[in-house]
Amino acid sequence: MVEKYSIRTDLALEDKERFEEENVEVQGVVLEEEYDEEWEVKTTTVRIQTENGAKTMGKPAGTYITMEAPNMAVPDEEYHSEISEKIADCIKKLMNGKNCKKRGEDWSVLIIGLGNRNVTPDALGPYVADNLNITRHIVKEYGKYAMGKEEVTLISALVPGVMAQTGMETVEIIRGVVKETDPDVIIAVDALAARNSKRLNRTIQIADTGINPGSGVGNHRNAITQESVGVPVIAIGVPTVVDAATIVNDAMENLMEEMEHSEALKGVGVVLQGYHAAEKYELVRELISPHLNGMFVTPKDIDDTVKRISFTISEGLNMLFAGKEPAE
Amino acid sequence: MVEKYSIRTDLALEDKERFEEENVEVQGVVLEEEYDEEWEVKTTTVRIQTENGAKTMGKPAGTYITMEAPNMAVPDEEYHSEISEKIADCIKKLMNGKNCKKRGEDWSVLIIGLGNRNVTPDALGPYVADNLNITRHIVKEYGKYAMGKEEVTLISALVPGVMAQTGMETVEIIRGVVKETDPDVIIAVDALAARNSKRLNRTIQIADTGINPGSGVGNHRNAITQESVGVPVIAIGVPTVVDAATIVNDAMENLMEEMEHSEALKGVGVVLQGYHAAEKYELVRELISPHLNGMFVTPKDIDDTVKRISFTISEGLNMLFAGKEPAE
Amino acid sequence: MVEKYSIRTDLALEDKERFEEENVEVQGVVLEEEYDEEWEVKTTTVRIQTENGAKTMGKPAGTYITMEAPNMAVPDEEYHSEISEKIADCIKKLMNGKNCKKRGEDWSVLIIGLGNRNVTPDALGPYVADNLNITRHIVKEYGKYAMGKEEVTLISALVPGVMAQTGMETVEIIRGVVKETDPDVIIAVDALAARNSKRLNRTIQIADTGINPGSGVGNHRNAITQESVGVPVIAIGVPTVVDAATIVNDAMENLMEEMEHSEALKGVGVVLQGYHAAEKYELVRELISPHLNGMFVTPKDIDDTVKRISFTISEGLNMLFAGKEPAE
Amino acid sequence: MVEKYSIRTDLALEDKERFEEENVEVQGVVLEEEYDEEWEVKTTTVRIQTENGAKTMGKPAGTYITMEAPNMAVPDEEYHSEISEKIADCIKKLMNGKNCKKRGEDWSVLIIGLGNRNVTPDALGPYVADNLNITRHIVKEYGKYAMGKEEVTLISALVPGVMAQTGMETVEIIRGVVKETDPDVIIAVDALAARNSKRLNRTIQIADTGINPGSGVGNHRNAITQESVGVPVIAIGVPTVVDAATIVNDAMENLMEEMEHSEALKGVGVVLQGYHAAEKYELVRELISPHLNGMFVTPKDIDDTVKRISFTISEGLNMLFAGKEPAE
Repeated sequence: MVEKYSIRTDLALEDKERFEEENVEVQGVVLEEEYDEEWEVKTTTVRIQTENGAKTMGKPAGTYITMEAPNMAVPDEEYHSEISEKIADCIKKLMNGKNCKKRGEDWSVLIIGLGNRNVTPDALGPYVADNLNITRHIVKEYGKYAMGKEEVTLISALVPGVMAQTGMETVEIIRGVVKETDPDVIIAVDALAARNSKRLNRTIQIADTGINPGSGVGNHRNAITQESVGVPVIAIGVPTVVDAATIVNDAMENLMEEMEHSEALKGVGVVLQGYHAAEKYELVRELISPHLNGMFVTPKDIDDTVKRISFTISEGLNMLFAGKEPAE
Repeated sequence: MVEKYSIRTDLALEDKERFEEENVEVQGVVLEEEYDEEWEVKTTTVRIQTENGAKTMGKPAGTYITMEAPNMAVPDEEYHSEISEKIADCIKKLMNGKNCKKRGEDWSVLIIGLGNRNVTPDALGPYVADNLNITRHIVKEYGKYAMGKEEVTLISALVPGVMAQTGMETVEIIRGVVKETDPDVIIAVDALAARNSKRLNRTIQIADTGINPGSGVGNHRNAITQESVGVPVIAIGVPTVVDAATIVNDAMENLMEEMEHSEALKGVGVVLQGYHAAEKYELVRELISPHLNGMFVTPKDIDDTVKRISFTISEGLNMLFAGKEPAE
Repeated sequence: MVEKYSIRTDLALEDKERFEEENVEVQGVVLEEEYDEEWEVKTTTVRIQTENGAKTMGKPAGTYITMEAPNMAVPDEEYHSEISEKIADCIKKLMNGKNCKKRGEDWSVLIIGLGNRNVTPDALGPYVADNLNITRHIVKEYGKYAMGKEEVTLISALVPGVMAQTGMETVEIIRGVVKETDPDVIIAVDALAARNSKRLNRTIQIADTGINPGSGVGNHRNAITQESVGVPVIAIGVPTVVDAATIVNDAMENLMEEMEHSEALKGVGVVLQGYHAAEKYELVRELISPHLNGMFVTPKDIDDTVKRISFTISEGLNMLFAGKEPAE
Repeated sequence: MVEKYSIRTDLALEDKERFEEENVEVQGVVLEEEYDEEWEVKTTTVRIQTENGAKTMGKPAGTYITMEAPNMAVPDEEYHSEISEKIADCIKKLMNGKNCKKRGEDWSVLIIGLGNRNVTPDALGPYVADNLNITRHIVKEYGKYAMGKEEVTLISALVPGVMAQTGMETVEIIRGVVKETDPDVIIAVDALAARNSKRLNRTIQIADTGINPGSGVGNHRNAITQESVGVPVIAIGVPTVVDAATIVNDAMENLMEEMEHSEALKGVGVVLQGYHAAEKYELVRELISPHLNGMFVTPKDIDDTVKRISFTISEGLNMLFAGKEPAE
């Protein structure tokens, strides 16, 4: 049955859902849901509290906040502005939870725009970095009073590129930069892969567990976590692609399920019922073209969507850090 | 059975293949194949000669040359240079066939880079336009002897953008520009949709029929043909995406075929054999998520591939037009 | 003395100023000034009312509104939002003055992003086009009631590129597109050359005379006017460069003036006073390196500035056209 | 007299020339010239051998090779290919001289694309990085025999961005990455500022002294040298801008010199001869608009030029490292 779950998703929410479908109780995992009727935003918090929970979910222990905001894929300035505020709130909450501030009064935050600027659905992270208010160099040169505030946040940013461009693991680059510039916390923004195409460009996941190897758009992701880079890592992700094999797999699972229940195909059902999930999965697997490896599915208007959502995220970050110190 | 063919491909070669699979003789369609062993390039020429052939194929009458060059997806300068030459030869042949030169001795060629520069697999056309040797304005200003040659080709280029960016049909823009600048022939470069993911980024189709509405990457394509714009249109296309629904459909057809023949599943086979192709297709159709509409499948390294192939095409065009007059 | 003025500026305001410096009364040219103290924006309207005035000014008859907004070069969302509104107001006023609406109730507006996307200070026009709400294709397909409004504006946009990229004069492209798509009015956005580096990125000129050949960043500008394209052309320009020769010329004029008045250099003054302006200009001219031809001067942070101002302009256009019909 | 030289150039060749103009013998600095008649390329090697020489030149001790290749600004594939080879040779020579290989048989080379991708004349470094054959990750994963060669070079690359984008000094980023990935040598590519506009886009300087704070296009340059990052740094630079103040200063020096020698202005000459160089420089300085600070001069066709030259450099690097081990 493990094999069934070998199709990866970057969303903790989707892992949880699959267990619910199967009516499996996952010990050590707590779920909270909240619904904002005005803005039609459903916020789900998945807390993986034990190592056992982590093992079952296939994701490290920590807090994963997912906002499902169906209108995020359409242009509506007021709506996006509201989402920016919600993003700011979530990040603040997670940063407070991690106690990541190690200094007296000022924060130093390094924001990483992960992904490949030249592949549209993977450009989310770089685009977010493009619209940030960068302040670290100003504070370093002119002092924090130059910012006209009692408390300032030193914002720095990096767009490391992907391994095919750099020849280096992204975590190597980040670890080196962290050692030299000593931020209190990293915020890493990345495009994710969802299991379900309905989630694309409508969902934001913010987690205090950092970035963990997943399906993603590219293969640029070694773990970028407190363990690997030395400071807490808050991860912001938006699913912009679905793995091509996932989509085929889902459709075929649907087909087989349909066959098992269809009146017209009842004969087939009888046969298929004789098979275990794992055997069925193996059957499906063989039929997926090997050419689908390394392929992803994304909408045709991905350029507009990625541009818009990246702006919403960068506005959230600018709101959070340009204003008062976040972790009061 | 018509429904079966409602999944569109932009490649005439793939239309032809489907009929061959079905052992259907298509009247009015002639096929020629050639294999270059040294470079492992298979060139297939599909000539749709009658209106009947056109109707059956779902493509206008004309000549479609397809080069299958498996190594085109990898970096190999010598190989790409060879492909550039083959592209130049094909275009020349098709232009000669169309008798498109209407003036005394000099050619005027307008090259159109179709597609959306901001969606990586759709950026092929714009990238080709970026690397062309543009000469029309120089010849217009300094005379053709400024080029140091007896015969010159006046090259102009346009990247019209897609409808979501312009609010205009691409054909409106091109028709207007053709009327004002009076080229002898248009060469339109576009990213295509293939049926088969194995063809992605390894195949070039060059046709003398212009651009016809198809699946493509975006929906930017009204017909751009001699009828709609007033001068012959040579189309150069490279499949860079597969429609998401196509991939799912194919996998499910495989699954059903497998079931019909599998020893283990022989019971299913008996049942399924009782269904017509159309019924099976309908079954499959219902299972494909409507969310897959407007989605495409493309490889993760599409940025490098599109950059490389667009360079190969622009080099072919530069070879052809910077040298001697093409249609001797 | 004509030679003195052969150094071109794209700003009517600067032409006017030079006459004022010389205490020359320019007949047929009317000047109005307004100052918004809250936002520190000085608006100057230059009306060239006669052919004589046009000849003296070296600019076609019409209305040129110039906003000098010193804070436009710094990031301040509220300020930029205010400037967007002022831009919308100016355009509306000029469009009303031109009576450019030729249809019953709906407007069709074609916005042209002039300039070269790949040369940062010349990318203003293309960047503006990138952020527009394009609606023409939606209204054409779904009808104006799809927009949920009684009156709609059909917005289309084009980024034609520059002559080195297209081989065509920009006016040829626009004329063709106008003939095919029949807009009521064109709004052309372009980067300008100023005479005075203090004006860079702080000034917006909006004129109802279209685009006229000027210094500009590139040489991409044949006249784009009602005469050349057939519909009224409102031009929005922001000076982002100064011609390199202009800067040298200005500094040298300063030097010579200083010499004429300096106590320490009074002997020089005596000599120079013996020369006519034209002779001095000739002297200066010889000393300007011919290598400065085709060179421009621009600030090092031009990337941020162009991005920010282009957004301010596109927001102004979106405000104007997304709301009610502009010319009530 | 020191002030006179306070107008910086990034080219050692230009420092040397100024001393020659003044007939000043610079001790500890050796000059070699070579002329390739076939390709019209003049190669000048400036060796600063003593601390005294370094002080006088205002540049650290080391070897600076400058190629003046007038045709580099025009498109000519064969010519650019020849320049690529010469670049490869120079780098190899300098790397051998520095004994930078510290391991058994394989090299690890980190190539840094300095500068701002969004400001055209400063994009040289990032564009070079875009076209490199990156191999480090392949060799790390599959072993060097995967490359089909006895000896391989592990190429990695980084485009760190400029301080306004990152909030970090570029040297902080590089130092961190060097510590984590341990390359044998860094090759840093950057756009330079020349004193003389004739040199723009026709000159390449390759030096074994790393990158030192200079005028540059942006202010992104703390020293990136063996001292600051821990491994030898070979710097490749091409002047793409002239500082705006430099151009004005030069023109005015010309004017004053002209005045001193001009028959017509001989009276002025007498006066000016009474002033010291420093006084004259001060006079000039006052007349240069403070608005010119932070401004640069660059040609209008800088987009094509930077694209072409960056390709020439990346081809040189690819030739050098894809072939045999460089330091035999």
